[in-house]
Amino acid sequence: MGIVVQKFGGTSVADSECIKRVARKAIRCKEEGNQVVLVVSAMGRSTNQMIALAREISANPSPREMDMLLTTGEQVTISLMAMALEDMGHSAISFTGGQAGIVTDEFFGKGKIRSIDTKRMKEKLDQGNMLVVAGFQGITHEGELTTLGRGGSDTTAVALAAALDADVCEIYTDVDGVYTTDPRVVPNARKLEFISYDEMLEMASLGAAVLQPRSVEYAKQYDVKIHVRSSFNDSLGTIVREVSEMEKNVIVNGVAFDTRVAKITIAGVPDIPGVAMNIFNRLAKENINVDMIVQSNHKGDVNDISFTVSTSESKVALTVMEELNEVLKAQGISFDDTVSKISIVGAGMQSNPGVAASMFEALAEADVNIQMISTSEIKVSCIIAREEVQEAVKALHDKFELERK
Amino acid sequence: MGIVVQKFGGTSVADSECIKRVARKAIRCKEEGNQVVLVVSAMGRSTNQMIALAREISANPSPREMDMLLTTGEQVTISLMAMALEDMGHSAISFTGGQAGIVTDEFFGKGKIRSIDTKRMKEKLDQGNMLVVAGFQGITHEGELTTLGRGGSDTTAVALAAALDADVCEIYTDVDGVYTTDPRVVPNARKLEFISYDEMLEMASLGAAVLQPRSVEYAKQYDVKIHVRSSFNDSLGTIVREVSEMEKNVIVNGVAFDTRVAKITIAGVPDIPGVAMNIFNRLAKENINVDMIVQSNHKGDVNDISFTVSTSESKVALTVMEELNEVLKAQGISFDDTVSKISIVGAGMQSNPGVAASMFEALAEADVNIQMISTSEIKVSCIIAREEVQEAVKALHDKFELERK
Repeated sequence: MGIVVQKFGGTSVADSECIKRVARKAIRCKEEGNQVVLVVSAMGRSTNQMIALAREISANPSPREMDMLLTTGEQVTISLMAMALEDMGHSAISFTGGQAGIVTDEFFGKGKIRSIDTKRMKEKLDQGNMLVVAGFQGITHEGELTTLGRGGSDTTAVALAAALDADVCEIYTDVDGVYTTDPRVVPNARKLEFISYDEMLEMASLGAAVLQPRSVEYAKQYDVKIHVRSSFNDSLGTIVREVSEMEKNVIVNGVAFDTRVAKITIAGVPDIPGVAMNIFNRLAKENINVDMIVQSNHKGDVNDISFTVSTSESKVALTVMEELNEVLKAQGISFDDTVSKISIVGAGMQSNPGVAASMFEALAEADVNIQMISTSEIKVSCIIAREEVQEAVKALHDKFELERK
Repeated sequence: MGIVVQKFGGTSVADSECIKRVARKAIRCKEEGNQVVLVVSAMGRSTNQMIALAREISANPSPREMDMLLTTGEQVTISLMAMALEDMGHSAISFTGGQAGIVTDEFFGKGKIRSIDTKRMKEKLDQGNMLVVAGFQGITHEGELTTLGRGGSDTTAVALAAALDADVCEIYTDVDGVYTTDPRVVPNARKLEFISYDEMLEMASLGAAVLQPRSVEYAKQYDVKIHVRSSFNDSLGTIVREVSEMEKNVIVNGVAFDTRVAKITIAGVPDIPGVAMNIFNRLAKENINVDMIVQSNHKGDVNDISFTVSTSESKVALTVMEELNEVLKAQGISFDDTVSKISIVGAGMQSNPGVAASMFEALAEADVNIQMISTSEIKVSCIIAREEVQEAVKALHDKFELERK
């Protein structure tokens, strides 16, 4: 008998009717002959409501107490889900993260899973129970409650699937799989049957918000097969797994884009060692995530350095850069928070030269100007004006014929 | 430095403003030189809301999953309270029941405290922290979450005070102490400065809903001084503690009454051994709490048996009795759910004959008919018609001159 881990997010368990629907889905999986482990998030917007309540009390609540507060959200869902399963005639048992044996490090609010002791889960599964485990949380060796940070429920599900040696980790979402690009932008976008971990990682990091990047990294590391599928129907979704040699022939698998991007350029910084280090150390100290970085030397002894950040961090980044402009005796800062990043992703790219050129050609034909370029082994990203994103996505989707299988 | 345990119920922590008010009260206690342990309940009506949510999912949720659900209520409050204390500049740390070392037996929904390991609490107190402990909950040896049943937060507070050898356990309520009777009925009712555990127990069991009887039993057992006081002002309340010999001279200390009472009589049951056993075993099986029982033999070979139950259980009790009427070949059931119980309580009663007679005299003078009588060492209770309760309470309060100290 195989083990299936099923993860349902907050919108899938938003009220009692939703919880019953999920319970029925899980029971079908059990009746097909599987041992079932559900991983669930907090109901609907309850986490946000708790955060708002904490802010009423304190502008700067301690991470330990925030975790003490937020872990209650998933605990409510697991109890209700177990009740629903029992009410439908199936024995079920709920586990907090700690009861499931999920031990994390001591970093409140962003705990990392250290180990999972599966003894109790296996015992309860073997007794015929369905398990319902609280996502997003764990316990330290000292018994402190921790949360795993953003997207933590996906990570919980993948980590449990790895620890329990599950056949598959099913992640239920409000979309029915991973598409070649956003179907709202390109109506003939195609649902992918398979995608590799690396491609999924790039797609996720690039704005296709189906899976949290950390959970994909975890799945890759422990070779966990992920099935991304819809919580609203029973059709098959997209399988994320190791790519086969044959599939490396697929050059481009998807077009991703992210419109929450700001570009900052510091012009005319002295062309001496240590300047880039200065800039990016300073940004790192402010906890600002820098994405693309481009340096160009155009006047001999000075350089222009451009980089992109998320729009949510762009104001802080701009303040930092204006201070540095003084210190570095540079020639000024330019700032643009009306740009977007557009990317093509494909595992076959590394063995197929000319893919980047095709991308630039498609964008040129669509009259889209490229402001920055960055490449990795399996993706090419360009920064363009935000108002041109939709047109650019369509152009690339057409160029690489992604609507065809 | 002494330890003070302060317990605040749901209405005292109903929203963020209430929580801040409680935090300020606790900080004053700390600044007076005490080590402070707060015990808090779930916010306002959140427990009832969770129960309603569970009922939407299942008509009969398992006690284990109910405890998994309900323990989140106190966990929310402890985190917010610790945030409030920290925000006001005091180091604070919240503990779930389990983290506070409160180990219970395995009876979900009505767990009893087995032991409290105070090591971690003492360590954190000695480091200068204020502690905030979740009331109403504990953990089993196997790591299961349990609740202590009704009024459990009072019990948590008293148990912690006993385990930590606290100077006092302060129970904050919406009244400012224990009165000779309900001040809403008798305006010159007097706040008692002291009351003994036994008297408090009788008062509590008899309807004066200031403290849960179980917490008073616990306090008596471990000799914990309880201070019942108002969460809305700073005036002294009532101290509950062991009675001194001198105080045994006080004959009657209070008048208690309970209007949620129903009386059931089964008439003409055969006067043979085992009949009463039959009746009350059968009621116990239905989990019905029988309070007063009176048996009278009036026709030689048959008896009438009367007893009282809470109005909330009277319908079930009536059904059981109608079945038994057939089985026992009795002469019929009479039922009255418009009665009330009125009681006088006093530790000195046992050494002062004639107290019961004075009570009956007072009721007769007020033209109140007595339907049933029951006595214990420190109380006399009568069943009377509900519409005569207020008059009867006033008559007894006057008779025993309870307005005088």
